[in-house]
Amino acid sequence: MAIKPTIPKGTRDFSSEEIFKRDYIKRILKTTFESFGYEPIETPSFEKLNTLIGQYGDEGDRLIFKIINSGEKVKKVDLSSLEQGNYEKFSRSLSEKALRYDLTVPLARYVSQHQNKITFPFKRYQIQPVWRADRPQHGRFQEFFQCDADILGNRSPWQEIEMVLLYDQVFKALDINGIKIRINHRETLISLASLLNISERFNEFTSTLDKIDKIGVDGVVKDLQTKRFSNEAIDKIKSFIEFSGTTIEKLKFLKTFFSNFNEDKTGLDEMTFILNQLNKRTLESLSIDFDLSLARGLHYYTGVIMEVSPPSEIKIGSIGGGGRYDNLTSKFGLNNLSGIGISFGFERIYHVMESLKLFPDKIQKKTEVLFLNFGNEFVEIFHNDVYKLRKNNISCELYPTTEKLKKQLSYADKKGVKLVVIIGPDEREKNKFILKNMITGDQLTFPFEELLAKIIEYINKN
Amino acid sequence: MAIKPTIPKGTRDFSSEEIFKRDYIKRILKTTFESFGYEPIETPSFEKLNTLIGQYGDEGDRLIFKIINSGEKVKKVDLSSLEQGNYEKFSRSLSEKALRYDLTVPLARYVSQHQNKITFPFKRYQIQPVWRADRPQHGRFQEFFQCDADILGNRSPWQEIEMVLLYDQVFKALDINGIKIRINHRETLISLASLLNISERFNEFTSTLDKIDKIGVDGVVKDLQTKRFSNEAIDKIKSFIEFSGTTIEKLKFLKTFFSNFNEDKTGLDEMTFILNQLNKRTLESLSIDFDLSLARGLHYYTGVIMEVSPPSEIKIGSIGGGGRYDNLTSKFGLNNLSGIGISFGFERIYHVMESLKLFPDKIQKKTEVLFLNFGNEFVEIFHNDVYKLRKNNISCELYPTTEKLKKQLSYADKKGVKLVVIIGPDEREKNKFILKNMITGDQLTFPFEELLAKIIEYINKN
Repeated sequence: MAIKPTIPKGTRDFSSEEIFKRDYIKRILKTTFESFGYEPIETPSFEKLNTLIGQYGDEGDRLIFKIINSGEKVKKVDLSSLEQGNYEKFSRSLSEKALRYDLTVPLARYVSQHQNKITFPFKRYQIQPVWRADRPQHGRFQEFFQCDADILGNRSPWQEIEMVLLYDQVFKALDINGIKIRINHRETLISLASLLNISERFNEFTSTLDKIDKIGVDGVVKDLQTKRFSNEAIDKIKSFIEFSGTTIEKLKFLKTFFSNFNEDKTGLDEMTFILNQLNKRTLESLSIDFDLSLARGLHYYTGVIMEVSPPSEIKIGSIGGGGRYDNLTSKFGLNNLSGIGISFGFERIYHVMESLKLFPDKIQKKTEVLFLNFGNEFVEIFHNDVYKLRKNNISCELYPTTEKLKKQLSYADKKGVKLVVIIGPDEREKNKFILKNMITGDQLTFPFEELLAKIIEYINKN
Repeated sequence: MAIKPTIPKGTRDFSSEEIFKRDYIKRILKTTFESFGYEPIETPSFEKLNTLIGQYGDEGDRLIFKIINSGEKVKKVDLSSLEQGNYEKFSRSLSEKALRYDLTVPLARYVSQHQNKITFPFKRYQIQPVWRADRPQHGRFQEFFQCDADILGNRSPWQEIEMVLLYDQVFKALDINGIKIRINHRETLISLASLLNISERFNEFTSTLDKIDKIGVDGVVKDLQTKRFSNEAIDKIKSFIEFSGTTIEKLKFLKTFFSNFNEDKTGLDEMTFILNQLNKRTLESLSIDFDLSLARGLHYYTGVIMEVSPPSEIKIGSIGGGGRYDNLTSKFGLNNLSGIGISFGFERIYHVMESLKLFPDKIQKKTEVLFLNFGNEFVEIFHNDVYKLRKNNISCELYPTTEKLKKQLSYADKKGVKLVVIIGPDEREKNKFILKNMITGDQLTFPFEELLAKIIEYINKN
């Protein structure tokens, strides 16, 4: 019985056309990362289960693809958890390793493991697939690429500035304009909470704030009311997050807002420095939006947070984000290592490039010259030349069998071949060859000894 | 409690130095494949379990990494197989997908699934990791790269010839010389068996022959005696596999050997054609050894078989192999599709390159210029220039904090930085900058307005 050839839901095959486009983005990412002094690392596709578990919350843990232990090891299975309906625990008793869920935890593990060999500050980039057992849906996959750039082992606001410049240069190189980076600082929100005497309800407050993209300012206000925050606090929060203006105006507003605030203002000063510096740079592909309401990833980020939106005509969520973190490696016993990282949403950037038709023509490497096949005695005449052309970086094929001319030409056509070389009985007799231009349809005849020169000339011209 | 940061046995982290070397090999493979008209494809890391199971024999099936079903699906577990000690069956009842074991079965699945969109003959290459639950040992990994080039949908001996040329050009481009390709034809062995009246014991005969690398000719003879092959047959087999000489001499020997053989000689003729053609080519990195004893993969290959050995000074097994197959896609209901494929043993080729010191210098992209940090007011002076240099493809870093000069220079040193730029209080006052050559130790002072020009000049010179 034949099996129906299909792939698991949420996974994809990539044709050569897609691969050349994906490689184009990867190459630009790599080149730009390297121009900023980042080094690549790669980590194994699977990590030990205990490296991953507990890093992504309960929901995340469930989305980790676990690999079944080999051979007899499955005997150790915890059947009682199966009876109790604790399928997660049951699964874990069968598994010691699992597919990478992101690139951040492997980075933390890598840095902790190799700390003695690493030069700090450690600037690394990583472009590899990750796997998540998410329910597949349009644009969401179980296997997809992540691209991260991080710096570990130093804390300087110049790094935040350089991260924004890195985004700017990557999107510039990809020719995507109209990118917006929303930026905020955890300390801005901590100071606000402190000023309003709601510090002990910080998580509640910021988790409401984090929903602003979906529910709007009114939704945030309503939610805070439901949660019985004081009207005074809510009014202040509203005026804070609603304030609009240029970066400079917002910094002025903040200064006034916190003028009577006598606690530590290091975070506010840091933010002021970063934004003032960025304001002096000529950013080429993006604009900065100091967004006082941005509250993403606060269980994780400890300083600046960033979120990158695509050009406004593209209706997808963020295409990147990042921030400052301070406790990435403590799980592995390496403490006090500050870091900052940003990620590029590879699959969404691909979608943006495709939607805006930003992939250049000719990034796909195709066969340039096809030699038709009229039988072994003819192929022998030119087979050495096929080989020489390849050494000249010209991509050549020999049609392998003596099919009808029409079929051979149809192959050339479908593969987008530029030139077809015809050497049949007539040509052999006259010591000539025909060069057929597949784009114009022109056919030219030349003496056989000019074969290499004519092909090289034509290919270089086109 | 901190967790010890380690990775699963048989997996590897790659540092930037290793990645640049691995990418160097991959780039040469890709470029050469493309010059022969092969297109890349990529398939998902995991396939449906039933796509993979049954394709690699019982032992292979056990080495497939299976992924545990998510959530409630594990309820369907077959507990009776656990009780019966059938751990493989037990594992399969918990899994619907598994990590790719090789690139061949995914190719067969891909071609069958997308047959209506594919132009045949389909020339594809694929460079991706595969995973095997083999016991890890020196040089054997659970995650490693495979690189395959295949042509499906045509049968012409020119393809065998082109496959050898492809090997030749890849190894030439990698600068590995002294490669040997052993080549044989399944039909040679079938004809031999038929001539000796042992056709019904073909598998027994060839599986003994296949061990010749380990047990030698004497071992083969002994094994055949144990298996009670006739002395006459054994003598003939011995004379056959022991015959040494040039390709041309071997072809002559074969002709004489089979002169009274009246069955189909298509395979022998094909082999003769291929070897005669190859004999006329100037191979640049390899030599051909028509090895009448080569009997690898006969449960799978239906025509020519090839095995590639590294230069003789390197003591590892084969670094590549391939052959003609005819039934690759029949499992998926696509019949009568002949194919030929070769693979490159990526990890072993890496080992050869490393052992013979064949990696060129300077393939590793490093930070070229480091700007020292004497405080924000100094960084502001040149930060825009850092950014301009990167646009000139010069890799630059700013040291992020104002550490002691020694520490900043030590960072430059460890990262292999070529040039360090120093702009401190003295320099600012005089409107100058210092360019320190980290290789020679020279320090030169220039006017600040020459910063870009001098750095670009120096980098382009070195």
